[in-house]
Amino acid sequence: MNALFLNCTLKPSPETSNSEALAKLVAAALQDEGVETEFVRLTDHRIKPGVESDMGDGDEWPAIRERILGAEILVFATPTWLGQPSSVSKLALERMDAMLSETDDDGRPVAYNRVAGVVVTGNEDGAHHVITEICGALNDIGFTIPGQAWTYWNKGPGPGEDFLNDEEGHDWSASTAKAAASNLLAVARALQANPVPPPPS
Amino acid sequence: MNALFLNCTLKPSPETSNSEALAKLVAAALQDEGVETEFVRLTDHRIKPGVESDMGDGDEWPAIRERILGAEILVFATPTWLGQPSSVSKLALERMDAMLSETDDDGRPVAYNRVAGVVVTGNEDGAHHVITEICGALNDIGFTIPGQAWTYWNKGPGPGEDFLNDEEGHDWSASTAKAAASNLLAVARALQANPVPPPPS
Amino acid sequence: MNALFLNCTLKPSPETSNSEALAKLVAAALQDEGVETEFVRLTDHRIKPGVESDMGDGDEWPAIRERILGAEILVFATPTWLGQPSSVSKLALERMDAMLSETDDDGRPVAYNRVAGVVVTGNEDGAHHVITEICGALNDIGFTIPGQAWTYWNKGPGPGEDFLNDEEGHDWSASTAKAAASNLLAVARALQANPVPPPPS
Amino acid sequence: MNALFLNCTLKPSPETSNSEALAKLVAAALQDEGVETEFVRLTDHRIKPGVESDMGDGDEWPAIRERILGAEILVFATPTWLGQPSSVSKLALERMDAMLSETDDDGRPVAYNRVAGVVVTGNEDGAHHVITEICGALNDIGFTIPGQAWTYWNKGPGPGEDFLNDEEGHDWSASTAKAAASNLLAVARALQANPVPPPPS
Repeated sequence: MNALFLNCTLKPSPETSNSEALAKLVAAALQDEGVETEFVRLTDHRIKPGVESDMGDGDEWPAIRERILGAEILVFATPTWLGQPSSVSKLALERMDAMLSETDDDGRPVAYNRVAGVVVTGNEDGAHHVITEICGALNDIGFTIPGQAWTYWNKGPGPGEDFLNDEEGHDWSASTAKAAASNLLAVARALQANPVPPPPS
Repeated sequence: MNALFLNCTLKPSPETSNSEALAKLVAAALQDEGVETEFVRLTDHRIKPGVESDMGDGDEWPAIRERILGAEILVFATPTWLGQPSSVSKLALERMDAMLSETDDDGRPVAYNRVAGVVVTGNEDGAHHVITEICGALNDIGFTIPGQAWTYWNKGPGPGEDFLNDEEGHDWSASTAKAAASNLLAVARALQANPVPPPPS
Repeated sequence: MNALFLNCTLKPSPETSNSEALAKLVAAALQDEGVETEFVRLTDHRIKPGVESDMGDGDEWPAIRERILGAEILVFATPTWLGQPSSVSKLALERMDAMLSETDDDGRPVAYNRVAGVVVTGNEDGAHHVITEICGALNDIGFTIPGQAWTYWNKGPGPGEDFLNDEEGHDWSASTAKAAASNLLAVARALQANPVPPPPS
Repeated sequence: MNALFLNCTLKPSPETSNSEALAKLVAAALQDEGVETEFVRLTDHRIKPGVESDMGDGDEWPAIRERILGAEILVFATPTWLGQPSSVSKLALERMDAMLSETDDDGRPVAYNRVAGVVVTGNEDGAHHVITEICGALNDIGFTIPGQAWTYWNKGPGPGEDFLNDEEGHDWSASTAKAAASNLLAVARALQANPVPPPPS
């Protein structure tokens, strides 16, 4: 069983990423259950805007797409800006739009029988909406979203500190991260044992 | 296997409901697979605003809640107003907020191992957002959302006809309804065979 | 100059309302500038679901609609449930949907030259989305939304206390409330001095 | 009076842009009233992800930011993907997040007394949500959103043609574009005559 984490921070390496820090807690819980985990920090790659799986000429998305298709579990980790998901997360989702018309040999959309979750950090309110927007898009593409397959951290009201600069509330975010890992893995296993068939034609 | 359809139209019986008409196509496809289906038209019941499972004094929600918990598959059917889900759908979701702290004997939130989908009609654009908002709330409560577990009908741009007054596009909505039924049933069965465990404490 | 506050709490009087408590700060700042303010607690009234200005037979919306049209400034005050606006706020917005086709003698939609803002409280994250959803609907109907015409209070991460039970962060919410009042009033006055004309036919 | 159109298509020049085509109708109506209009196609520029006004090292955002601040009217034109605004529009909004802490000599956020609107095209449903998300973010930054300052085009249900390949519904989108131009200009003029003051400290 493989899990891929797409880190959708706006900051390239080696800057610290709050979203990655929280996502690592979900990854650790999955590793404890024997899942192979991998992180891709999208801003470290050249990803062209578009809705095709390969936009050509130096586009690094095709290699990331392969990793997505090599994982049964996909997790988006994103910061919150203006109460909304990062542009980097949207860039990835748009490229995944191509999966709507890509099927396996049985005619099943390639996202079927894969599960997805979301990790959100922010220096202000917005996490519920960020989770909802990303899950809505992934669901549209064909991913199954297990119940409570997310965790988040922010403090309100108004703008404040970052996750890595403020210890308050980390316990809640950590226990919610463990629950998310448990739920993602359980549904991924259930679908592996009893896969969703191709849609009726 | 049981499926419950919550019709969130603003109109009480016996007025015709466009959302119900489209939801019937999902129900028919489920019935073909041996699923028992039931419809509840929420505006025909006295449901008090609130976030408790029983708001007392004539509140008809407790009986509807029992039906929700008696079904492995839940489908919200709602019209689109101002591009958003109906107030009736929100009223139901708020009452379901109580499920966040209700668990079975093993400590599992009661919504776990249940799947949910959405059917949307509208005289204007808005279906994707309606689906996303309702699924986001249900996911928060613990429902699993199978990939592509929805169908919708509207025509753009601008305000126009209702589903029952315009035949255009019904084929797409109907085939998408069949796919939704297939996806809901397959994930419900997979979770029945391999249930999600209680979250780690 | 008149301001109407629609309190969209789920709780009827005389229960305390967190949303009302925060909204009172916006109202106080408006009163300091000579604006007449009025509060309507929607759950204290019998408002039928629907999209007509008068749904007949005991419907108390028509009187509330008159108050909306008697005010240049409209403020929605709402709690946050599941990260979303309350069902009561949606009920009001749906009834206001009728205003889309109601015009003054010059052919101007009745919401033109009125401004609107939002006050949100919650025991968890969600305020930005609540503000956005309500403003999106009001904007669709024809209200002008001044920049930064909102305030909110919640604390994250995870569920926690109510506004009236936790003093932390009240300063930020209060100063943001004052800014909201200033912005609402300034744009209302600007539109009064130079009204938006009817849309070109 | 100046109006700036940010074209948030995913496609670089010289590919045709549906969003631009519809936005031109808003621009034409503004030009008829003597407004200077300018278009910037964001994918033709190197814009770094981030939340600062200048991300350094070849970043072309600072010049675009100057154009935004040189205009009283800002219009986002964006396609719809997965029912949501384009990643390019989010990239711009994130860069504009920096304006939250940028003020003029009087202590007024730089976005105050500017108005904004939205133009959306799509090959599927989603326009209301796209408008709402973009206006929500702009409002947060300080822009005033006039009532009905948008137009859109799509056809439902399900995926279909692009704006430039299908004549159906163009009349509605064009007359709505004219109304949007009228409303944007009237509110911009009202704010020019009676500017919103700095927020109370």
